[in-house]
Amino acid sequence: MHLVPILGHMPGSHCTKDIQKNITSAAQPTSSPATTGFTELQPLMAHLDLPSEHMEANDPVQPAGATTLQRAWARFLKGVSYFSGDMAAFGKWMEKQFILLQLLDWVLRGAAQVMFVNNPLSGLIIFAGLILQNYWWALNGFVGTLSATISALILQQNRGAIAAGLYGYNGILVGLLMAVFSSAGDWYWWLLLPNIFMSMMCPVVSSALASINSRWDLPVFTLPFNILVCLHMVATGHYNPYFPQVLIQPRSQMPNITWAEVNVAKLFKSIPVGIGQVYGCDNPWTGGIFIISLFISSPITCVHAVLGSAAGMVSGLALAAPFGDIYFGLWGYNSVLACIAIGGMFYALTWQVHLLAITCAFFCAYLSSAISNIMSRFGLPACTWPFCLSALTFLLLTTGTNRIFKLPLAKVTYPEKNLGFFWKLKKQEKKEKRKAIEDQVTLNDKLQLRIELERMEEGRVASEISDSKNDSAPPAEHQDTAEEVRNNDLTEVTFADYV
Amino acid sequence: MHLVPILGHMPGSHCTKDIQKNITSAAQPTSSPATTGFTELQPLMAHLDLPSEHMEANDPVQPAGATTLQRAWARFLKGVSYFSGDMAAFGKWMEKQFILLQLLDWVLRGAAQVMFVNNPLSGLIIFAGLILQNYWWALNGFVGTLSATISALILQQNRGAIAAGLYGYNGILVGLLMAVFSSAGDWYWWLLLPNIFMSMMCPVVSSALASINSRWDLPVFTLPFNILVCLHMVATGHYNPYFPQVLIQPRSQMPNITWAEVNVAKLFKSIPVGIGQVYGCDNPWTGGIFIISLFISSPITCVHAVLGSAAGMVSGLALAAPFGDIYFGLWGYNSVLACIAIGGMFYALTWQVHLLAITCAFFCAYLSSAISNIMSRFGLPACTWPFCLSALTFLLLTTGTNRIFKLPLAKVTYPEKNLGFFWKLKKQEKKEKRKAIEDQVTLNDKLQLRIELERMEEGRVASEISDSKNDSAPPAEHQDTAEEVRNNDLTEVTFADYV
Amino acid sequence: MHLVPILGHMPGSHCTKDIQKNITSAAQPTSSPATTGFTELQPLMAHLDLPSEHMEANDPVQPAGATTLQRAWARFLKGVSYFSGDMAAFGKWMEKQFILLQLLDWVLRGAAQVMFVNNPLSGLIIFAGLILQNYWWALNGFVGTLSATISALILQQNRGAIAAGLYGYNGILVGLLMAVFSSAGDWYWWLLLPNIFMSMMCPVVSSALASINSRWDLPVFTLPFNILVCLHMVATGHYNPYFPQVLIQPRSQMPNITWAEVNVAKLFKSIPVGIGQVYGCDNPWTGGIFIISLFISSPITCVHAVLGSAAGMVSGLALAAPFGDIYFGLWGYNSVLACIAIGGMFYALTWQVHLLAITCAFFCAYLSSAISNIMSRFGLPACTWPFCLSALTFLLLTTGTNRIFKLPLAKVTYPEKNLGFFWKLKKQEKKEKRKAIEDQVTLNDKLQLRIELERMEEGRVASEISDSKNDSAPPAEHQDTAEEVRNNDLTEVTFADYV
Repeated sequence: MHLVPILGHMPGSHCTKDIQKNITSAAQPTSSPATTGFTELQPLMAHLDLPSEHMEANDPVQPAGATTLQRAWARFLKGVSYFSGDMAAFGKWMEKQFILLQLLDWVLRGAAQVMFVNNPLSGLIIFAGLILQNYWWALNGFVGTLSATISALILQQNRGAIAAGLYGYNGILVGLLMAVFSSAGDWYWWLLLPNIFMSMMCPVVSSALASINSRWDLPVFTLPFNILVCLHMVATGHYNPYFPQVLIQPRSQMPNITWAEVNVAKLFKSIPVGIGQVYGCDNPWTGGIFIISLFISSPITCVHAVLGSAAGMVSGLALAAPFGDIYFGLWGYNSVLACIAIGGMFYALTWQVHLLAITCAFFCAYLSSAISNIMSRFGLPACTWPFCLSALTFLLLTTGTNRIFKLPLAKVTYPEKNLGFFWKLKKQEKKEKRKAIEDQVTLNDKLQLRIELERMEEGRVASEISDSKNDSAPPAEHQDTAEEVRNNDLTEVTFADYV
Repeated sequence: MHLVPILGHMPGSHCTKDIQKNITSAAQPTSSPATTGFTELQPLMAHLDLPSEHMEANDPVQPAGATTLQRAWARFLKGVSYFSGDMAAFGKWMEKQFILLQLLDWVLRGAAQVMFVNNPLSGLIIFAGLILQNYWWALNGFVGTLSATISALILQQNRGAIAAGLYGYNGILVGLLMAVFSSAGDWYWWLLLPNIFMSMMCPVVSSALASINSRWDLPVFTLPFNILVCLHMVATGHYNPYFPQVLIQPRSQMPNITWAEVNVAKLFKSIPVGIGQVYGCDNPWTGGIFIISLFISSPITCVHAVLGSAAGMVSGLALAAPFGDIYFGLWGYNSVLACIAIGGMFYALTWQVHLLAITCAFFCAYLSSAISNIMSRFGLPACTWPFCLSALTFLLLTTGTNRIFKLPLAKVTYPEKNLGFFWKLKKQEKKEKRKAIEDQVTLNDKLQLRIELERMEEGRVASEISDSKNDSAPPAEHQDTAEEVRNNDLTEVTFADYV
Repeated sequence: MHLVPILGHMPGSHCTKDIQKNITSAAQPTSSPATTGFTELQPLMAHLDLPSEHMEANDPVQPAGATTLQRAWARFLKGVSYFSGDMAAFGKWMEKQFILLQLLDWVLRGAAQVMFVNNPLSGLIIFAGLILQNYWWALNGFVGTLSATISALILQQNRGAIAAGLYGYNGILVGLLMAVFSSAGDWYWWLLLPNIFMSMMCPVVSSALASINSRWDLPVFTLPFNILVCLHMVATGHYNPYFPQVLIQPRSQMPNITWAEVNVAKLFKSIPVGIGQVYGCDNPWTGGIFIISLFISSPITCVHAVLGSAAGMVSGLALAAPFGDIYFGLWGYNSVLACIAIGGMFYALTWQVHLLAITCAFFCAYLSSAISNIMSRFGLPACTWPFCLSALTFLLLTTGTNRIFKLPLAKVTYPEKNLGFFWKLKKQEKKEKRKAIEDQVTLNDKLQLRIELERMEEGRVASEISDSKNDSAPPAEHQDTAEEVRNNDLTEVTFADYV
């Protein structure tokens, strides 16, 4: 249990998307660290079948025999906890460091937050993947994240949200995609000007959208990025002399699809490429690196990312998309994000939610096709509009079942921890229910005891009566007296029990 | 008054569009059945000029002479009540039947709910009209309604709303219009796949939109259908090898309009055709059948449907639309729906509301032209977007007059019953006002009496005083005593009055 | 202080954009007129350095020497107050006049409200500017304002809002721009029909949008105008035989921009032209007249209008817009409105807000380019969509600093008065804070006094003890007693202080 003190201090505000509620949520202590810390880690050690309460009780008096293995395991978990999840211990340590180092932490977390991952190590790996793809794009992404984070600081946005990278992820996407869609070629330094301006507008648009979405307890997702990149691209356009954009045109003839030509290897490769396309990268190795960065922080996120990408690829085939688009990952990236968001991030992961996430991935792929067709009329890419719209739709869904549980936005961290929160909540509910039933049962038992006692007494009284041959008292009064006796007895016994 | 017990048990939840508030509204008993039942039927028997309260009082002691006619009339009304309105008695009976039979009821109600009619008989007639138009379309419509209803059951949506067909009407439109706009020809069985998928998404989108619209107490109308059909059409498009759509192109030259060529007979025929186009049908007989189905459930709805279609046709002529479009009913169907929605369905019908409904129909026709021009750029039809947007705008209107009364969404049933609700509310208000005035008047009368009494007493006291020549008591004290007397008197009299 | 009684009666409801909250705000008396009236005028007399409270105190006992100049100044201010700001005195006087005269006042205020100016004189000057531009356009503008105002009266909208011209400004824009964009030529009388219909729909759309926007305490800006003019233009289009629109087409080739050809004089002239383009006028003299009309009512508004127009012009140059568009003022008018709205109108003017307003003007110009590119695909102009969207975004922004203070919508009047409201609020806060600190200080002083007293007493007690050599009482008890004594003393002294 060495890891408990480290994990127990995870600030609730560290990964929350709800900027307004941050302060209040941070103010609510999440019960005692010793009990919560362990429950939170459980999903990461699923093959550890002992119930946590049992373990806690056993821990101090572990039998000497099993100690070595368990200790090694605990040490391993402790090691894992340092760089998995949201790296809260590291975040806490960072708070006391030099501001520039902190800023670096925030930028790295921002880079990873595109995939809902609040982890600087993942962010670092993602930057490595970007550099592998294209130096110039990586630079633009970095400048974008930095500008957005600084702008959020200037506008005095919530510090917890900034530290969690929630103001950076739109910045990195704006920076990257403006570079990706520029047709002026790499190392066109003038591009940094609109890049910085648009990235600095991110916190403004984020804050404005959060004011609206918070009414429904919804996150803003990548809507600011979508709005700002589309804004820049359509404001300049393909025919702009200063900032020309790549030419995107609507399809105007039947694509030639021959199933014999399908390349299965490329189809499989399209799954990591789809994950890479979240950042506009078509290099499968970059996509693979991104998968690793996801796995480090949260295996559930990683699985859903892969499933989402696959669902997108299948949808592409079903809707007769040109194979080139599918290989290029254009059908995958929105489904990746939608599947992550629904599958464990904003809903607590159950089987029903898992199915819902996959349905959402398919719906998102459909929507992706529709939106890219519409946007192409304006020379625009689909960006991540399909993801935002489909995920928001599925998050607005209200159902009668308690197996689809939407987490309050202030409690959202990462799937494993969310699940822990959900389980704790359910256990509490169950305990309360069981207690209520037990109370009921105890009461019933007592009542039965009372009735039996009364019957015996009545028998005694009756025999006394029959003995004394005294028939003057009416039966009604007698019954009243008996009842009074019973009540008094009950009160006494109950009182005794409580004492 | 035989019909009272049947009508009196109408569950308020049966036709409500407000899914969230359903349970609470069902929990509020709508006062005693004897008084409400009759008021509700009144609009259906408008030539019965006796005030309802008067009739109720008279009913038990009817003079022998008028009995026969009145009894026959009551029996007729009872018969009508079985299949008019929302057929609540039938719905109640259905609750105890086999689930498949119930499902059929829900599907039929869903088919009619497109026109805001919660009536399985109307639904049956509408399906007859669809079969008259095209077998394949009718089949797709049925599959769509069924899929949507089943999907709502899976997602554990509100049972009352499902039973009222509120999850089916988007499904039937999705199914029908996907068949109508497919250019793959009839009996292209693959179409059923996206049809079922999109219909099953209906409850998801409905529930999501309801989460938003319920903040303003607004219904979702056919927005889910609009979103999903546009989604499918634009995701596949005209050039899709699997699911090709009909080619819709924007107008790019001056239409040739010669007023001499106008065909008045066709113009008149465009009114039922416009009603038929709500379901995508251009057969005037189908439109005529739909008119009958509306009349059965609610004559007010029927009248507004015809007025709306006429308003749309006139707008088409005023805005120089090609005659072909007008004959085809494209200018009518949105105005039909908008006119029904405003004219008595979501507002209580008064003359002001009637005028508002006609204004809305014209505005909707204008909007219809605008939206179809915009949508045609993307190869899309206007669907019922114009209706949704114009009706929502007119429902969001706030005015200072109490003659434009928007019903709470949980109380919306059908125009005649809505009107009954409105009248009851107004009568209550009037009664309260009258009572308040009467109380005031009584109080004033008493006060005047008191003052007169006091004057007389004062006179008596004064004379007594003058008689006894006893001037030791100061006048102030004397007045106090008089006032005390007055107060005591007043209390006594008031008390006596209340006893 | 002669002007105080006149200004003091300014009804708060007179210029408010919040229709719902109007009645409540009118019901809240804005403290005593004597104190508020003067504070409100302060910004208009910035070189008067005396604090207002000081002046008020001095006023009745002014030394005879300084009287003449000060009196002249006061008289001048009084004169200015009659036609500057929102001309509340005039509005009050108007309330007792003939209804047609009142209607004229409302129409003139409506004409000026496009620029957020609630001033009939400004409205009159603006109409003069319009007549200078084009008689037919001015007529259409007048008809539009009149229709919109009458329609609002029919729909029984809030009287205060109507009187402030808040239902007229969309009408004048609808009327003007429908005339501007009609390609049927001037004096095509049929145009008045759709003009009147659309203007009469303004209050409907305004009221509907206000129902939505009021949830976030946001104004509707010119959204109704944007919606209705776009509706009319796209419903008819360029190829309509009755109401043809000018042909607007998207750019499809690289514009030829040679910096040598730039005309600096024309660039400077584009600043007033940009202000004129708010009303669709390209005459620089008209723009100049509009600047005068703004200065009359509110110098802050005027400054921000000029800054906004300049920011738009610069953005146009930066984004490689064709010089012709910039000269024509197309890059300026949205930024003008956005800069006015943020710079002092809906936020209280501070340096931070001033910078925010300029940022918003640049963002708005960017957005303007984007939206005009998108709208041109549908043959539509950008209208004032960019202004509405950018201003709403910046008004939804939430920051941690109290230097960016968004006024409650019911308190919005004009920048100078808003600033007065903000200063008063801050002064109150400061006073409360100072009082709290003083209380704290007093308490601390007392406590210190208490402790010293106690020490002295303790010393006395100790000496007494040492004198009597009585060591039987334990030290703990002794200390308790001392503390009791201290407490008692404290209570007494505190009590004495309060008495």
